[in-house]
Amino acid sequence: MESELLKRFDSLLERKHYSSRSEAIRDLIRRDLVSEEWTDPDADVIGTITIVYEHHEHELASALADLQHRHHSQVVCSTHVHLDEHNCLEVIIVRGASQRVRSISDSLIATKGVKHGGLVCSTTGRDVM
Amino acid sequence: MESELLKRFDSLLERKHYSSRSEAIRDLIRRDLVSEEWTDPDADVIGTITIVYEHHEHELASALADLQHRHHSQVVCSTHVHLDEHNCLEVIIVRGASQRVRSISDSLIATKGVKHGGLVCSTTGRDVM
Amino acid sequence: MESELLKRFDSLLERKHYSSRSEAIRDLIRRDLVSEEWTDPDADVIGTITIVYEHHEHELASALADLQHRHHSQVVCSTHVHLDEHNCLEVIIVRGASQRVRSISDSLIATKGVKHGGLVCSTTGRDVM
Amino acid sequence: MESELLKRFDSLLERKHYSSRSEAIRDLIRRDLVSEEWTDPDADVIGTITIVYEHHEHELASALADLQHRHHSQVVCSTHVHLDEHNCLEVIIVRGASQRVRSISDSLIATKGVKHGGLVCSTTGRDVM
Repeated sequence: MESELLKRFDSLLERKHYSSRSEAIRDLIRRDLVSEEWTDPDADVIGTITIVYEHHEHELASALADLQHRHHSQVVCSTHVHLDEHNCLEVIIVRGASQRVRSISDSLIATKGVKHGGLVCSTTGRDVM
Repeated sequence: MESELLKRFDSLLERKHYSSRSEAIRDLIRRDLVSEEWTDPDADVIGTITIVYEHHEHELASALADLQHRHHSQVVCSTHVHLDEHNCLEVIIVRGASQRVRSISDSLIATKGVKHGGLVCSTTGRDVM
Repeated sequence: MESELLKRFDSLLERKHYSSRSEAIRDLIRRDLVSEEWTDPDADVIGTITIVYEHHEHELASALADLQHRHHSQVVCSTHVHLDEHNCLEVIIVRGASQRVRSISDSLIATKGVKHGGLVCSTTGRDVM
Repeated sequence: MESELLKRFDSLLERKHYSSRSEAIRDLIRRDLVSEEWTDPDADVIGTITIVYEHHEHELASALADLQHRHHSQVVCSTHVHLDEHNCLEVIIVRGASQRVRSISDSLIATKGVKHGGLVCSTTGRDVM
């Protein structure tokens, strides 16, 4: 590898608290395998969906709960943190076919009133050594 | 101790998977100390509140969310499990003065529409060796 | 009912924030039905197990994690709150045959080093109107 | 805007279940504001960290627990899902100065043995309308 690229990679690893270059490269490879898993629409994956919204908007809270219940066999659990009197953060853990998980995530984040959302596409771990 | 009492205690410990009598007695003493903590209305305690309700009753879900937000500095987080298309289990972890925690628990469980509820009065661990 | 009993019941309901006597009686009946569910060892139930322990005792943390993994098809999820530098509160939601759920709870609470534990015997909600 | 760009944007919104273009644009703007919040190292933010690892590696589990306890005033709670007999998914919700939250996330993900990890940089909601 070019020494310039390696130098920049090493300084990134230091900032990211990696103890060795090989551990960091292993992580990059695993991340690549996890992304690959998600390209197969039927692969069994697990995703962490984070949304932030105002709980006062009751129709929104109901819509979010209805959506989760409609997919109750995919939704493992959700954790709710009351940020202040108005705002909530909700983390929903969803397991199932990657296409389904992504669709649930998209629907939750696109719901009118959700201020912010994000998905971590993760893995059930079996196919990633 | 009377041997009859000990015999019954030992058979209980076996059913409860205790490995020794002394560990079981230590647990009884700790449980007593935790109960004691809760009798002081200002003691800093932590409680686990479990409620089961139907999420379709939107007013109920809103009432429960409002109540938790009103006490957002006591409510650490809540975990929601979607039992089926209709029913939810919600576990709310609440930390604060024992009087306040018990009052939040009573209010949540007494909310019209909550099918079942229970509180585990626990401890922040500092005063229980 | 005797008026003395009713008077004491009403003052309890006020303390517990119930809005009406009928709501409180409905709750008592439901609680009785939930207890009944738990007497059938094969009934599908859900329980909330709370334990407090010191995370520094690594063998304890490992034992608790192993125990939960051995029963991973019953354990829905667990929520962990870091109380301070030493103490943890862990809430484990377990679903399955009542006998199995109670046995998992007993084993977790009896594990050497667990300072305090409690179980809320709850319901999946279907059989409780 | 160029019609070609709009056409591609509209087809993306359809795939992502957005009901209107304005809701989608509002979300883009909010996402931009959230990213902006995270560029200020002292801003009060909230992040959702997801990690997957094998619970059998007891030293790893201990290292992860120690790390979270060392930052217990930032770690709100963590949710643990037992994926199978070997693998765990853990979701850690962390609140604090953005620099601190990112550093905790980097350290958790870089820990030797963690198979996969991801961070959703979210917001406490106050500064995002």
